[in-house]
Amino acid sequence: MIQHETTLRVRYAETDAQGIVHHSVYLVWFEVGRVELLRARGVNNREMEALGYDLIVTETHARYLAPARFDDRILLQTALAGLRSRIFAFQYEVRLVDGPLLVQGHTSHLILDRSTGRPVRVPEDVARLFR
Amino acid sequence: MIQHETTLRVRYAETDAQGIVHHSVYLVWFEVGRVELLRARGVNNREMEALGYDLIVTETHARYLAPARFDDRILLQTALAGLRSRIFAFQYEVRLVDGPLLVQGHTSHLILDRSTGRPVRVPEDVARLFR
Amino acid sequence: MIQHETTLRVRYAETDAQGIVHHSVYLVWFEVGRVELLRARGVNNREMEALGYDLIVTETHARYLAPARFDDRILLQTALAGLRSRIFAFQYEVRLVDGPLLVQGHTSHLILDRSTGRPVRVPEDVARLFR
Amino acid sequence: MIQHETTLRVRYAETDAQGIVHHSVYLVWFEVGRVELLRARGVNNREMEALGYDLIVTETHARYLAPARFDDRILLQTALAGLRSRIFAFQYEVRLVDGPLLVQGHTSHLILDRSTGRPVRVPEDVARLFR
Repeated sequence: MIQHETTLRVRYAETDAQGIVHHSVYLVWFEVGRVELLRARGVNNREMEALGYDLIVTETHARYLAPARFDDRILLQTALAGLRSRIFAFQYEVRLVDGPLLVQGHTSHLILDRSTGRPVRVPEDVARLFR
Repeated sequence: MIQHETTLRVRYAETDAQGIVHHSVYLVWFEVGRVELLRARGVNNREMEALGYDLIVTETHARYLAPARFDDRILLQTALAGLRSRIFAFQYEVRLVDGPLLVQGHTSHLILDRSTGRPVRVPEDVARLFR
Repeated sequence: MIQHETTLRVRYAETDAQGIVHHSVYLVWFEVGRVELLRARGVNNREMEALGYDLIVTETHARYLAPARFDDRILLQTALAGLRSRIFAFQYEVRLVDGPLLVQGHTSHLILDRSTGRPVRVPEDVARLFR
Repeated sequence: MIQHETTLRVRYAETDAQGIVHHSVYLVWFEVGRVELLRARGVNNREMEALGYDLIVTETHARYLAPARFDDRILLQTALAGLRSRIFAFQYEVRLVDGPLLVQGHTSHLILDRSTGRPVRVPEDVARLFR
């Protein structure tokens, strides 16, 4: 199973008036995780965009088990979770570094050809990651 | 079924380099929707916080069917979707005003007593909304 | 002097762990203010983009006098503040509705021709607003 | 002069429909820069908050010279810029790693005693940084 780990530090701007990271921020972190997973595997998101492909989000799901706070060090674990026809998926686990699981999530994606706006078959250099 | 509609205008800062509203922004809008639904029903989030209750998010789910763009006028439809013991849920549909469905979602919530950090039974003025 | 007023409600996601609106959010509101001022004067930002013009930000300044909090109703006053060659400016005052001044700011802007990436003379329908 | 450098990678969520980093995001990065400068000097923002002090923002200024784009590697240079009575200031330069200057800025700050809401003299462990 293809996995990737990245760490990040909670920014003050990511907190809310409950003193915790706002729940919408985890979707931003998930995106960081999949960009870094793909980069580590030789797939550059910016090159894909330059080639006329937009990687779009079709579904997001997150379960929030415990909060993160300002300045916490976060371990973000991202894994490829499946490729089914033109849809591919990622799974995420967000933890405190050396600490408990905070959030679990998954996202689904399509790749669109920008000139037609239509989904395309997953390019070979992405598809091979799932084999 | 208790429902509420609110409209909003897409802000430039809510768009991303694909020229569309970033997918994380819909969670922010869902939150606007449930605050407005509760306000319309006489439940004031800020008063709840002043009483020592934090309404927290335990789960979010969104399906993205079509994109919104800068300056689009958005119709956000929020509905109470269930109350089961201490967990209550909302459903959302996001449309262009006079236009197609863009995003569907639901969220689940607990109310915490801030002094103990523990979930409490849903207060009577919220619980009655579900009957 | 050309001015415009718009109101908005503080979103939970706009607060931070100090329980107040994060200082970066006021730049987002300033942008809402100038979009609405221009719209009220018949200048549509999206049309300008469709014509190949990008209105870019070259400078921002804000002074923070008092905080806003979740659910506060905000009055945003925007004014055209000058046109000098290719640079034009806006001024902002952010208040609580029926309340004190919270934040003052100004921003400066250029219009770029997207095909060349170079500043262009301010289009006539914008320039006439300053006379 | 006390300075600190940190690097970061542009997130997709930080871009806007012009394909560049939204101008409000630089204020978020400035905040990252001053937290990291203070941390490197032994001043922990979270401890300050635990002691009942809130470091607030009283002024921000930014000049935007060139845009950053998704996935760009950013070098953020932060410097202490002055201490005058109870107000202290930081300066910032944001560059592409090995590239041109993108944004210059400065911010001013007060420290509030949360119990009184009033500005306090800058604590000794912060004040010594300016000598």
